[in-house]
Amino acid sequence: MQELKKKVLEANLELVRQGLVIYTWGNASGIDRDRGLVVIKPSGVSYDTMTEDDMVVLDLDGNIVDGHLKPSSDTPTHLALYKAFPQIGGIVHTHSAYATAWAQAGRDIPCLGTTHADAFRGPVPCTAALTEEQINGEYEKETGKVIISRFEGLDPVFTPGALVRNHGPFSWGATPAEAAYNAKVLEEIAKMAYLTLQINPSASCGQALEDKHFFRKHGPGATYGQ
Amino acid sequence: MQELKKKVLEANLELVRQGLVIYTWGNASGIDRDRGLVVIKPSGVSYDTMTEDDMVVLDLDGNIVDGHLKPSSDTPTHLALYKAFPQIGGIVHTHSAYATAWAQAGRDIPCLGTTHADAFRGPVPCTAALTEEQINGEYEKETGKVIISRFEGLDPVFTPGALVRNHGPFSWGATPAEAAYNAKVLEEIAKMAYLTLQINPSASCGQALEDKHFFRKHGPGATYGQ
Amino acid sequence: MQELKKKVLEANLELVRQGLVIYTWGNASGIDRDRGLVVIKPSGVSYDTMTEDDMVVLDLDGNIVDGHLKPSSDTPTHLALYKAFPQIGGIVHTHSAYATAWAQAGRDIPCLGTTHADAFRGPVPCTAALTEEQINGEYEKETGKVIISRFEGLDPVFTPGALVRNHGPFSWGATPAEAAYNAKVLEEIAKMAYLTLQINPSASCGQALEDKHFFRKHGPGATYGQ
Amino acid sequence: MQELKKKVLEANLELVRQGLVIYTWGNASGIDRDRGLVVIKPSGVSYDTMTEDDMVVLDLDGNIVDGHLKPSSDTPTHLALYKAFPQIGGIVHTHSAYATAWAQAGRDIPCLGTTHADAFRGPVPCTAALTEEQINGEYEKETGKVIISRFEGLDPVFTPGALVRNHGPFSWGATPAEAAYNAKVLEEIAKMAYLTLQINPSASCGQALEDKHFFRKHGPGATYGQ
Repeated sequence: MQELKKKVLEANLELVRQGLVIYTWGNASGIDRDRGLVVIKPSGVSYDTMTEDDMVVLDLDGNIVDGHLKPSSDTPTHLALYKAFPQIGGIVHTHSAYATAWAQAGRDIPCLGTTHADAFRGPVPCTAALTEEQINGEYEKETGKVIISRFEGLDPVFTPGALVRNHGPFSWGATPAEAAYNAKVLEEIAKMAYLTLQINPSASCGQALEDKHFFRKHGPGATYGQ
Repeated sequence: MQELKKKVLEANLELVRQGLVIYTWGNASGIDRDRGLVVIKPSGVSYDTMTEDDMVVLDLDGNIVDGHLKPSSDTPTHLALYKAFPQIGGIVHTHSAYATAWAQAGRDIPCLGTTHADAFRGPVPCTAALTEEQINGEYEKETGKVIISRFEGLDPVFTPGALVRNHGPFSWGATPAEAAYNAKVLEEIAKMAYLTLQINPSASCGQALEDKHFFRKHGPGATYGQ
Repeated sequence: MQELKKKVLEANLELVRQGLVIYTWGNASGIDRDRGLVVIKPSGVSYDTMTEDDMVVLDLDGNIVDGHLKPSSDTPTHLALYKAFPQIGGIVHTHSAYATAWAQAGRDIPCLGTTHADAFRGPVPCTAALTEEQINGEYEKETGKVIISRFEGLDPVFTPGALVRNHGPFSWGATPAEAAYNAKVLEEIAKMAYLTLQINPSASCGQALEDKHFFRKHGPGATYGQ
Repeated sequence: MQELKKKVLEANLELVRQGLVIYTWGNASGIDRDRGLVVIKPSGVSYDTMTEDDMVVLDLDGNIVDGHLKPSSDTPTHLALYKAFPQIGGIVHTHSAYATAWAQAGRDIPCLGTTHADAFRGPVPCTAALTEEQINGEYEKETGKVIISRFEGLDPVFTPGALVRNHGPFSWGATPAEAAYNAKVLEEIAKMAYLTLQINPSASCGQALEDKHFFRKHGPGATYGQ
């Protein structure tokens, strides 16, 4: 698991370097699908001093199997997503400003151009608000479930992130590093969509352009990169 | 008092590092409740050269008991708050851009999501405008009093900051470091609320979610951190 | 070609330093007009590790004549522009936030002051949207053609950049360095125009001032610089 | 003059450090009133390599008395201001984004709070647009004259800066360093006023508070600092 701990630590530190996280306001995790074990950041520990060995290892039921610290308070959300989305290998949560603003506004981020279409297929979906019952129940697990129910009919590989209403963005990917990359993309497209709609409230993209850019980078016909 | 001087210096420098203060536009203080002594930044001294021994020590009536420099011009505001809010151990004042914009707009910052609810219970209150009489009287002391009167019915531990109308934010905490932390949180939630309401002017959070997040981090039932 | 490879690498790195490009979201190229050869960034390679020898050399028909990597996916756009605009020696493409927002909004950036007039003569033009046929045909080449057709009646030396609708900015210049400079200018004037119109939606400049500033820096009567 | 050259160079570099100037988009100067000599930045020279000895020395009629480079193209504006405002010792011009946006919008920056009132008495005035005749005449000198005519009835010591319509901010002070400081203050209050009016379009301050803060830092009754 040392290799995965290292990758998860690195994804957490990348969030700080990319300006997505201040203090302890974020978390990244990764999963070893063969063993069914998740590695996640500890709760409320400073990024400055965090080491690989501070990472917490849990099984998918939330039992700690390795680690001397309490896991992130958002751990049940991560576990719910790993169980529902078997294709993903890493998850990130931040409170980055523009993505959080869209989440607080309760609005999907519309696809308005190729920067968005290169990474997310269609709008970045915003979940329903949690009910009072969900909030006062297993809150963090319900947070995962409200994402999952929003993804009915959506492919989490093609739409690698969501906004939890009145909370903030979660993103994911094949690896913790990819989840962190998608967290940055999400913040950038949240900012661009914000600016765009201030300039032209009726701005829109077209399906053909969305398709072209998304499939230039994703799926069997991808041509981008080496 | 050397220990407290060090903590107060450190809180002042943290304001600069977090991008909340330029030039000499801010101040942090701390109190030793046992001795009834306050340590505060000197007035108009550059952060680049400031040392622990430049900190000024005063009693709660404003008499200087140690230090070779004049204290911050906002000292009477700090003293008024320490007297009125016996639970607090540190105070910070900045002119950070988004929080100051809300103060200039004369508006409370509404709680629109969990980033806010994690640190502030309910809106960040904006004070009434000072009257001409208050401005031309003991202005800095009256600034403290206008905050205090705005907090009738509010718990300063649960709402660790305020906006002084047409002026800017004051924040506080159990320690100078916590007051500085709350100054940064206040700026971040001011920015997020600004962006949110530009996207959706009728955005709002719900009481259940506010309660959940606040009490996850505060009070006897807190579960966050190690 | 080593000299040109070096200049093209340097222009690519300058985009990162100026905050115009994150990850691999941009590309710069240069042309040796005597030989008819273009040097361009490889596709999807990290800026951190990129070297001169990673640059790809192509002829104007897109045949690779030197290099061990695939060229930027936007290469056909660059080649089309070099063929249509014989005066230019370097091209840059970015997804910088404000310029991209104007492109997503589908709006020309109006000239509102001397910062703009110093570098761009008249508005920064936004292209028409590509048709579904163009998107599903030779997309990157069509992207070049939609810029070229927008420049009917415009001088690409006087207007050294354009916004591709729902995509982002392309800029150019006599050299790769000048193209990178114009990419930064374009982002700055996009930001200023955004802010200006938020303050005063009916803001405008005047032709006399536009002329004065543009020709102070460009053309036979230029007086700026050493 | 070596001392003044050093101060002028330092003020120019400070503009870059404070994020007010990119490339060569700004200039700072200083005056030796006893000798009637002005030191100013050369035109279009990179800040990275600029030295004290690149500074240009002129008399108030614009005759170069020392220096191997051409002076800033804005030199006639500086000279006009030094002649009209005998109290000032340094001048700065930038294209900082928020202040330039207000200039492009053609609007005075209203005083909305104490950050503004601490440094500028009343609104930051925006000049009239230059006429076509002024633009096509001695343009840079006319730019100075349009500022000067806007200051009829205003005290340039109490209002240490102006916005030239469709152009950008000029600021000044007793020294080049103070002029650079006022350039930064102007940008900050331009940003805060922008944000404030987006939150509350009818925001305003009151005269008593403006007076209190201004005279806390300026004039014979000042109490701020050591």
